[in-house]
Amino acid sequence: MLNNLKPNSSFFKKGSVIIAGAGPGDINKITLQVYYAIKFSDVIIYDGLVNEKLLKIKKKNAKLIFAGKTFGNKSCTQAEIISWIENYVKNNKRVLRLKSGDPSIFGRGSEEISELKRLKIPFKVFSGITAVQEAMKNLNLNYFQNSGSFSLVTGHKPVKETSHEIDFQAMGKYNGIIVIYMGLSQIGKISRSLIKGGKKKETSVSIISRISMKNEKVYKSNLFECSKDKHSFGLKSPAIIIIH
Amino acid sequence: MLNNLKPNSSFFKKGSVIIAGAGPGDINKITLQVYYAIKFSDVIIYDGLVNEKLLKIKKKNAKLIFAGKTFGNKSCTQAEIISWIENYVKNNKRVLRLKSGDPSIFGRGSEEISELKRLKIPFKVFSGITAVQEAMKNLNLNYFQNSGSFSLVTGHKPVKETSHEIDFQAMGKYNGIIVIYMGLSQIGKISRSLIKGGKKKETSVSIISRISMKNEKVYKSNLFECSKDKHSFGLKSPAIIIIH
Repeated sequence: MLNNLKPNSSFFKKGSVIIAGAGPGDINKITLQVYYAIKFSDVIIYDGLVNEKLLKIKKKNAKLIFAGKTFGNKSCTQAEIISWIENYVKNNKRVLRLKSGDPSIFGRGSEEISELKRLKIPFKVFSGITAVQEAMKNLNLNYFQNSGSFSLVTGHKPVKETSHEIDFQAMGKYNGIIVIYMGLSQIGKISRSLIKGGKKKETSVSIISRISMKNEKVYKSNLFECSKDKHSFGLKSPAIIIIH
Repeated sequence: MLNNLKPNSSFFKKGSVIIAGAGPGDINKITLQVYYAIKFSDVIIYDGLVNEKLLKIKKKNAKLIFAGKTFGNKSCTQAEIISWIENYVKNNKRVLRLKSGDPSIFGRGSEEISELKRLKIPFKVFSGITAVQEAMKNLNLNYFQNSGSFSLVTGHKPVKETSHEIDFQAMGKYNGIIVIYMGLSQIGKISRSLIKGGKKKETSVSIISRISMKNEKVYKSNLFECSKDKHSFGLKSPAIIIIH
C-alpha cells in the first residue's frame, strides 16, 4: 500500500541504530519512516511514554526492551541503555531506540547521540511530532498576535551533571508565548517566578494533559491561580503548559 | 500493510476539511494520518513548498489545486483558498488543505481555522514535522547547555493586517537558542538588531537551506558575519536560521 514510499535496503542497516520519535501518543501521528523503523528493527529499546500499540508493527521475533524512563521513576540509566545498544550493534542487529515525542525536543536525544558518536556507532535520528505542535493546534494560537514568537522551555529540573536550572524569572520578560514541557509538578514555583520577572498575573495559562490521547484534558487558568501552591489541578503527567 | 493502524470511515467525512502538514519535504516524514488524508481526499489544495511526490498517494480522480503560496510569489489569496474550500465542502467533498511543514508552526493555519470556524465548516488539523525539529537533530544541539530553552520566531515580515513586526532587538536579551523561520532575506537586519539588543558578535549562526531535501545545505557563520549586508550566502529559501 505504501509501496511508492517503501524504503530500500539501505534504510536500516544491520549493526546500526535509529533514534526515533514515537510522537505524542496517538499511533497515527508517527511518521512513515518511524513506521518502517519499527517494522524492520531487530531490537526495540522503548521509553515509558511510548504508546505500546506501536510495538504491534514490529517483526514477530524482534526483541523488546522497556527502558522505563517515565518521569520520577527511572528504572534504568542512560549508561545501561547505551551499553545495550553497543552490545546489540556489535551483534550486527538493527537497533531502534524509540522515544516519546521528538528525540530532539527535550527528549535528551542529544545526549544519546553524543555517546553514539563517541563509540563510533552508526546512527540516524527520525523526528516525531512533539507536544507543542498538538497544543498550538488545539488552542489555535496565532503567534502574530503574541509578538510573532514563542519559546519552548523545560520545567523539569535538569539532571545535575548536564545542566543548570532554568531562570524563569528572566523568562518573565519574554514577550511571546511560553511553552513549558514537564513543568506540572513545579507549576506554582514557575508561575511565581514568571510574575516576579514581569508577566501579568492575569496572563492566560492552558495546561494540556495526555495530549492527543483519549484521556486528554485541557485546563484553562491564569498565572495568579497557578502561582498558588499545590496546583496540579488533578491533572496527570505528561502535561504541557502554555502561557499565552 | 498498515491495516492495524488503518483509519475507519469517520476518519475523513464527506463535506469536511483536513488541514494537514506535509512536513519539511522528505516524503517519508509525513505522518500516517496525513498519508491517509491524502489517500482519501476528493480535492487537494496544496502550497508551493509541498513535495509534489506526495500527490502520487492520491486517488486517481482526486482534484488537485495548486495554491502557490511560495515566499514572495503569492499566486492566490487566502480569501480565494477559503472560497474554494467552501464550495467543495458544499458539494460534499473531502477537502484536504495540504501545507508544508506544520500548519500550526508559522504555517498560518490559525488564520484558516478561524475562517472555517466562522463559516461553520467542519475541520480537523493534522500536524507535520517542522523545520526546527530537523535542524535541532542535524546540529545535535543540547538545550540544557543553552539555558534549557529555545525560541521560535518568524523573520518574514508578517502580513500587515494580521500583525506587527518582530522586535529582534528585544530578542537580543533572550538567553536560549533562537530559531528563525523565513528570515534569510532579512538576515543582515536581524543580526544587527540582535547584536544591538545584547547578543555577542561571535554567537554561532547555522543556516540550513532546503532542510531534509536532497539539496539541503548547511552554512556555519556568526552574528558579526551575518550582520554585514547581502548575506544570503548563496543559499536558497526556504531556510531556517539557528542562533546558538
